[in-house]
Amino acid sequence: MFTSIGLVAAALTTFSFLPQAIKVIKTQDTSSLSLGMYIMFTLGVACWLIYGLGIRDIALIGANLITFVFAVIILTVKVINVRKGIDPIK
Amino acid sequence: MFTSIGLVAAALTTFSFLPQAIKVIKTQDTSSLSLGMYIMFTLGVACWLIYGLGIRDIALIGANLITFVFAVIILTVKVINVRKGIDPIK
Repeated sequence: MFTSIGLVAAALTTFSFLPQAIKVIKTQDTSSLSLGMYIMFTLGVACWLIYGLGIRDIALIGANLITFVFAVIILTVKVINVRKGIDPIK
Repeated sequence: MFTSIGLVAAALTTFSFLPQAIKVIKTQDTSSLSLGMYIMFTLGVACWLIYGLGIRDIALIGANLITFVFAVIILTVKVINVRKGIDPIK
């Protein structure tokens, strides 16, 4: 019972970044996205990946690998827009 | 060693939503935030909370309770902006 809730939780939080990544790619608009959030979040997911590899937890590795890809896409477009001066740094 | 990486990971991913919540409150701008993302993410974090309560894992409960607060703030402003017609539904 609780295991299935855990699986739903993992699927939802992992794939929630997919619509955001699609939106960012389509619109190239990242004005209301926080640069601080995506720096912290991408670093955090990378740490989860290292942790997952360390304790050899396949669920942790898989989920965070997928999230990492989405996070890097979003962060990359955000950084490009900040560097171009389109987005403010904050 | 790996435990400390796990703690850093948890802290980073949990508190990464704080700068986004602050930005949203300050600017009220949610135009480039994905509604789909925040619906899925908030539901996912709620599931993590239920899962954490189910297996009585204090770290899981604490981290997801904090993230839930930030996610609800961001989602609320986004939904208000969509209902007002300021933001597109996608």
